[in-house]
Parts: sequence; structure tokens; C-alpha cells
Amino acid sequence: MSFRYDIRLSGSGGQGLIMMGIILAEAIGVYDGKEVAQTQSYGPEARGGSSKAEVIVSDAEIDYPKAMKVDLLLAMNQKALDEYYEDLKPEGMLIVDSTFVKTIPRATAIQIPFTGIARDRFKKEMVANIIALGAISELTSIVSKKAVEAAVLSRVPRGTEKLNRDALKAGMAAARRVKKGAPIEAPGTGTWEHEDI
Amino acid sequence: MSFRYDIRLSGSGGQGLIMMGIILAEAIGVYDGKEVAQTQSYGPEARGGSSKAEVIVSDAEIDYPKAMKVDLLLAMNQKALDEYYEDLKPEGMLIVDSTFVKTIPRATAIQIPFTGIARDRFKKEMVANIIALGAISELTSIVSKKAVEAAVLSRVPRGTEKLNRDALKAGMAAARRVKKGAPIEAPGTGTWEHEDI
Repeated sequence: MSFRYDIRLSGSGGQGLIMMGIILAEAIGVYDGKEVAQTQSYGPEARGGSSKAEVIVSDAEIDYPKAMKVDLLLAMNQKALDEYYEDLKPEGMLIVDSTFVKTIPRATAIQIPFTGIARDRFKKEMVANIIALGAISELTSIVSKKAVEAAVLSRVPRGTEKLNRDALKAGMAAARRVKKGAPIEAPGTGTWEHEDI
Repeated sequence: MSFRYDIRLSGSGGQGLIMMGIILAEAIGVYDGKEVAQTQSYGPEARGGSSKAEVIVSDAEIDYPKAMKVDLLLAMNQKALDEYYEDLKPEGMLIVDSTFVKTIPRATAIQIPFTGIARDRFKKEMVANIIALGAISELTSIVSKKAVEAAVLSRVPRGTEKLNRDALKAGMAAARRVKKGAPIEAPGTGTWEHEDI
């Protein structure tokens, strides 16, 4: 049986989940050279509700491009976590934006305040998705950091390259702290000024 | 059996097919309120090759979000047409960018010089995809013009709204001419200056 890894990126409309899905898929497919399919679905029920983008990675052609049991769930807010948690495999990785997610249904979750970092450090909430991409590239081996950086820089508006590169690196740094077991300090404490990026 | 309509947008990387797929899917799903799934696939074989984005529209939840037999094929260059033509249903609609597509394998195809119009009229090749979106909204009943305009304006960079709205309208006008049976003049003749938009 061939390898397959299902990623679901979820949150609310306006958090840039679809752009994140496209960048992640391009990083994996175009730059890292794996098979990847990227899908979003909409319908009347999506109005004002949660937004999600899915990325399926495989070593063979992908017949069914919709996520089934999820290996990696990113939840950028509580509602998305509540809605999509049940599809996460028991051994799957859960990453949440702790700026908005306060109730986590299991013991092992990666909690990083993506939006808080975006706000406090970059004064731009809209880079929270890029910070989260940086964290994903640090926490998994599904995509290389080099590929993510190349894909981000090919997609973001001209003139925002430095902002987005810094946001990626902030996400990687935050993820490294989590891996080391260091607590992620609440944004607003100034801790992020001293990051090792 | 439920209604299903499969759209494939194809061309080369850099022609903005994925952004076009996202805008079209948002127009249909978010603004027009139908069920829609939007997918792109990448792999090692995609390097330097053709690019495609798929949009599936249905009146029921979409189980299989990859295009099968295609109802509408947009080919923005010859290579994409040659590669994807075989999946088009005999009764399906074929729309080509006649700037680049010179050999058409059947009698009935909508031929509009999207890139030529973008170049001559807007001095920006990058709006060829938006012109094509305008044409699709004029030629099919799968999406409303209002929904396409709303989706385009929500996705394009700030400051480019007028350019993109004009590009949409140029695509609609070109499509209206085709429907009337009027020949689409080669760009560069000045004809486009007198368009009814």
C-alpha cells in the first residue's frame, strides 16, 4: 500500500487558509517533488462558518483528493477545532492557534499563539497563516523548510517578501521551543523580541 | 442522480489558473450558493509542464472532487489543449485562448484571444485569466456575473480593483460578440478600443 498523508488546515474565512493550502501544496509538489493534491469545498452551509483547505501528500498518484482520516490538523480557532477534531487520527498531530483555542480535547497538542505573534511582533494579523506554515515545516518532515520558503516567496505580493520570510522564521522558532519543551510565552510579554531567528 | 458539472482550467504555470479556480469556486460556492469543490494536483511530472485547476459544481455534496469527464475545458495554450482535450465530453464546451491555440481538434470551439486582449488593451498579460473568467460567466449559466465580480474583487490586491473589473467586462464583451457570431478581431487592430463595455 502506498504512503498517504492527509493535512487539514482549518479556521475562519479571512484567516488565509486557502492561500496557506496552495503554498503548502506547491512547496511539497513543485519544490519537494512529491505527489500532492489540494482541495477546498464550499457550499451554502459555508457562509459565515468555518473555512478549510486540504492537502493530500502521497508517493503515488492521488485518486481520492479529499481528506479522510487526518494525519495533521491545524485549527486556527476553537470552532474549527470542535468541528474537525473527530477526523483526526489518534496518532495524528494537532496544532492549534492558542490565541483563540482554549479547550483542547486531548493531552498532546502543539499550542502556539500564531495570531498573537502576528499581532505583537509584526503588527499584522494576516501573517498568522505564514507563521503557522513555518511551524508546520519545523514540526513535520512532510515538507522541507527550503521548499516552504520558496513557495511562500513565489506567492506573496511583491514588496512583502521580508515580512513573510520573517513570519516563517518566527513560526519555525516558536515550533523549536515547543519541541524543546519550553513553554510558549503569551504574546505581549516582550519575549518574542528575543527570539533566535 | 444529482447534477454535476466538471470544469477544467488549463494552461502553463504563471497564467494564473489556480487563482482563477479559487475565484470561480468562491463565486459559485460562496456567492451563488451551490456546492463546489476546487482541486489542484502537483507532482514531479508537473515541473515546467502544464498547470491545471479543477472546479466541480453540484447540487449535492461532492464525494469525488477530481474532474472526470469534463463539461467545460478552458485551454490557455496549445500544450494544455493537446494534453486535456480527450477528457472533454463531446457535448462539452471548449474555450481557448486563440493568442496561443492555433490547432483545434473539433469544429465548435469558442476562440477568444484572452492574452492578446490583456496585452493590447490593459498592457498587462497577467489579467488574461480574469478576462477568461468574464467570458466564462457570459457563456455559461454555471455562475452569475455578479458572483464572479464579487469573488474577483475580494481576491485581487488592493488598488487593482478597477483594472480587474475592466478585465472582467472585456471578457464578457468578447464572449457576447462570439455568441452573436461576430468574428473576434485579432488584437492590435484597435478594434478593442471600441468595445461596448
